[in-house]
Amino acid sequence: MKHDETLRFAPAHHDGSPLYVSSPHPSIGDTVELRVRVAGSMHVTAVHVRSTPDGEPRFDAAERTETAADGEQWWTASVPLINVELGYRFLLRTPTGLLWLTAAGLSRTDVTDDTDFVITAYAPAPAWSDDAIVYEVFIDRFARSADWERPAPPDWAHAAGWEEPVLWGREGALQQMYGGDLYGVAEKLDHLVELGVNTLYLTPFFPSGSNHRYDSTTFEEVDPQLGGDAALIALTEAARARGIRVLGDITLNHSGDGHEWFRRALADPNSVERGFYFIEEDGGYASFCGVPTLPTFDHRSAELRRRLYDGSDSVIARGVTEWGLDGWRVDVAQSAGRHGAVELNDLVAQRTRSTLGDHLLLAENQFDASRALRGDGWHGTMSYAGFARPVWAWLASVRSDEFWGTPGAIPPYTAADVVDVMTRYSSRIPWQSYTHNLTLLDSHDTARFRSIAGADRQLLAAALLFTLPGMPMVFAGDEVGVEGVHLEDGRRPFPWARASWDEHTWDAYRELISLRTTHPALRGGGLRWLHASDDVMIFERATADETILVAVSRGPHEALLSPVSGRSLLGGGDLVTGTPLPLDGSGYGIWEVAR
Amino acid sequence: MKHDETLRFAPAHHDGSPLYVSSPHPSIGDTVELRVRVAGSMHVTAVHVRSTPDGEPRFDAAERTETAADGEQWWTASVPLINVELGYRFLLRTPTGLLWLTAAGLSRTDVTDDTDFVITAYAPAPAWSDDAIVYEVFIDRFARSADWERPAPPDWAHAAGWEEPVLWGREGALQQMYGGDLYGVAEKLDHLVELGVNTLYLTPFFPSGSNHRYDSTTFEEVDPQLGGDAALIALTEAARARGIRVLGDITLNHSGDGHEWFRRALADPNSVERGFYFIEEDGGYASFCGVPTLPTFDHRSAELRRRLYDGSDSVIARGVTEWGLDGWRVDVAQSAGRHGAVELNDLVAQRTRSTLGDHLLLAENQFDASRALRGDGWHGTMSYAGFARPVWAWLASVRSDEFWGTPGAIPPYTAADVVDVMTRYSSRIPWQSYTHNLTLLDSHDTARFRSIAGADRQLLAAALLFTLPGMPMVFAGDEVGVEGVHLEDGRRPFPWARASWDEHTWDAYRELISLRTTHPALRGGGLRWLHASDDVMIFERATADETILVAVSRGPHEALLSPVSGRSLLGGGDLVTGTPLPLDGSGYGIWEVAR
Repeated sequence: MKHDETLRFAPAHHDGSPLYVSSPHPSIGDTVELRVRVAGSMHVTAVHVRSTPDGEPRFDAAERTETAADGEQWWTASVPLINVELGYRFLLRTPTGLLWLTAAGLSRTDVTDDTDFVITAYAPAPAWSDDAIVYEVFIDRFARSADWERPAPPDWAHAAGWEEPVLWGREGALQQMYGGDLYGVAEKLDHLVELGVNTLYLTPFFPSGSNHRYDSTTFEEVDPQLGGDAALIALTEAARARGIRVLGDITLNHSGDGHEWFRRALADPNSVERGFYFIEEDGGYASFCGVPTLPTFDHRSAELRRRLYDGSDSVIARGVTEWGLDGWRVDVAQSAGRHGAVELNDLVAQRTRSTLGDHLLLAENQFDASRALRGDGWHGTMSYAGFARPVWAWLASVRSDEFWGTPGAIPPYTAADVVDVMTRYSSRIPWQSYTHNLTLLDSHDTARFRSIAGADRQLLAAALLFTLPGMPMVFAGDEVGVEGVHLEDGRRPFPWARASWDEHTWDAYRELISLRTTHPALRGGGLRWLHASDDVMIFERATADETILVAVSRGPHEALLSPVSGRSLLGGGDLVTGTPLPLDGSGYGIWEVAR
Repeated sequence: MKHDETLRFAPAHHDGSPLYVSSPHPSIGDTVELRVRVAGSMHVTAVHVRSTPDGEPRFDAAERTETAADGEQWWTASVPLINVELGYRFLLRTPTGLLWLTAAGLSRTDVTDDTDFVITAYAPAPAWSDDAIVYEVFIDRFARSADWERPAPPDWAHAAGWEEPVLWGREGALQQMYGGDLYGVAEKLDHLVELGVNTLYLTPFFPSGSNHRYDSTTFEEVDPQLGGDAALIALTEAARARGIRVLGDITLNHSGDGHEWFRRALADPNSVERGFYFIEEDGGYASFCGVPTLPTFDHRSAELRRRLYDGSDSVIARGVTEWGLDGWRVDVAQSAGRHGAVELNDLVAQRTRSTLGDHLLLAENQFDASRALRGDGWHGTMSYAGFARPVWAWLASVRSDEFWGTPGAIPPYTAADVVDVMTRYSSRIPWQSYTHNLTLLDSHDTARFRSIAGADRQLLAAALLFTLPGMPMVFAGDEVGVEGVHLEDGRRPFPWARASWDEHTWDAYRELISLRTTHPALRGGGLRWLHASDDVMIFERATADETILVAVSRGPHEALLSPVSGRSLLGGGDLVTGTPLPLDGSGYGIWEVAR
């Protein structure tokens, strides 16, 4: 980019937000109005929308419905929803040739259908989740209540005092028990209110053999160590009273080898539970990644499906009806139902979704989840691939030598790389799934972002987290500056002693969350990129009623002349058309664009 | 590209051919050796293969197994086939960072899984189809036998003499009947032998109400107008005696409104056939693209499936067992089984494949067929999108104003665009599907390529057709220079009067086909692109035993210095390392590379 050049948006844009799509949740038989904006400089003379009803391409002509003072044109086409999935793209006729516009951008040459925009007739995610800001609590490490009669700790556990350092990367790490419990979480709900989040995601609460509890021994009850069913019900009620939704966490891929079903399956070859696992004649059995403590479920068993997720007697259903949950996060969802020649992953997702009805269904997936996000299964997945990894790669200060299991160091991305990668992942899924992905900087499964990138850069990343599409998730402790160089190290007990907080981080998180909460465009607006170079990325979020510009910079950079004027919402001076953005060095700015 | 620069292959390459994959058709439980070649200039220090068994990423380290004199390295990894589909990519560690290698090429940044290389455990296409060169015959227009007692023409037909001009684009075009028949095809099989093709694809042979016969009135018998069952059996036997395979053509998406099933369905609401269609109470019914003469099949009917393609009593099965076919081409396959909320396209493909066993199953698809080519359904589709369209866009002289139904003229592609588009489509499907796609320049559904591009450029396109991966298809007449500016115009009766042939085209087709037939690398070899600019494209096809270089040029271009030496097989002088390719202007060259 030349110096002193005024920034320009890409010459054509459409996305799945209401600014461009009249009805994001149509039914089969409905007609949807699709709008596309094109710069006057393109001299577009005709626009068609290509869809493929019943598999056969169809072109609907658009009409020019609006021309702005600066020459920008809006074209609108009415397109029927014939099938449950409507994939579509635009064909723009210009004096220099035809251009396709898909979710991956403009192309002069033919492109495959996998980046077509997608609207579906599937029931949408629950309305409240459109505005969700999520707070992840690793139960053993969040808060310990003194107000109840706690049972004796299980045999496997090594009790730790709240201030004791976390054992990590060594023997005993998973048995170290700080004694956080569900009554404790309930007592600290005002912290969530103060932070501004509205959704609580709890790691597993079933009885198990470790402090992370992903190796459940039963799904019949909430772990008595955590307060049992009564404590979870008390928590969901207290949360509801504050307008906070609660999500549970369950592994549908495997159980622990201590699970009562697995014990019965091993003990009795004629038991119904024998069919829940892949157990050989010789007693060998299939397990997750070959780890024998994690025997793999065989989802061909209808009784297993009934108990886990299929119908009103399932654990999934009971979470909602008995415990008051608002949805579930499914652990290692990319593997559930998959084993050798058995390929039932879609079935697991679809049946779980069907049982949950209008409650939220999220899935863990640390890699490319596009094939599992067509709209009939998970509402969204954890966006490691489409959000966390590129942000780490842009902002990491410590280039640690393993990156989510990928051999080699965290790669060095430019801001342009980040935008490419984010677009690559989001362009392959329906907008509805993209906006219901759980965006995150870190979780109980990673090092703390702060320990990878440093305190200053954590705030740059947080600015992206709270202004880009998705359901932003805070791993409890991030907001006060908790560190952790390894996933187990990151599970440090929450530092309730206020003196240990990084107040600057706390303030910045609250400001950003408050901004997202008060500006609908930051939650449900369209996303248009304005600029991405090595050190700066700038984008717009917009609804019919407001337009917000966000710029995040990791270092000194060339002068960037703003194409718009705007009032500062966070981070510095106002925007004035044709003058440099008031942002340099490391920082972020958020502006409401004048109309 | 600078002048006088020696051409270089991309620094890393892998594809699904035997040069890089030890076992292209493994079973679950097998281990596959995967090889990748990297230029010495990359200084690769480690290679991993990433796969996702049971959904979970896994990295297998490769070993450096060979270093060539020029520094090129070969790395080999052993990877288990855990699931029916093995998607994989390479991770290359270099001094300047990590690189992913997928079927779309190298990337510094994370890429989605949709361009991962894919091997599957599905049964492969029949072995003979690996070497197939296909000849499409539009039966009414190919050859008329005098040696049988022909029934009176049907009422709808207007008989035409063989030399009469084709009516096209107007009333009566589809009723004009030249009287080509199956005995006529059998009499002309020596023409196919002389040309060098080994597979005959026949457009529909069922009784119908038009000359193209895609509106069948019954599937019970071969059209008596064509000679009936006896003629088809005689033809397949005569073909087999010459080593020629025969494919039928059937529409599984709809029937004609004159079909006996549809008549019964309309006449009797209680008939089993009523369930074969989407018929409303008021007599309205669903039809292909809203054309009322083409009522859409409802594949939810098990009896319809049984009659059409599911099991040994089906038309699909009878084609093989009674009529001696070697497989089928399925018309408008992208729509079959799809109607509104009904989405059974995969089921149609899978059940048809299952019924056909080791016979060939091809599908029409004029657009992106990637989702239908995972390996368990169609063996391949007609490669309009991945082959014909980009070749038209590179070589068209007439930029006609509609391009396979896409509004607007045929776009102007450079050779680089062609390679991009071909790679885009091929990178989304298993190599096995890519190599069993029917590549083509034209068909009964398009204008003749010759009339779009001219006679000289037809030969450039033919050079691509017979040297790139896929099963090349010749639309009968192309090889002797038949013209046609519109799809109906292209269905001109075959000009058996030798004086009307373009002997130069005939010779060139035979040379190219002969070359493909005698050089295994041109059929089953890997594909590596060496160069693509505006006017020239150059690629390599290679097996362990031979390496062939192909260059196609549409006009004058810069000097291109060959990186290899080689013996000319077609088109001009030999290749000498470091000297310009002996090719300029419009033409093609094919060389066997010295080892």
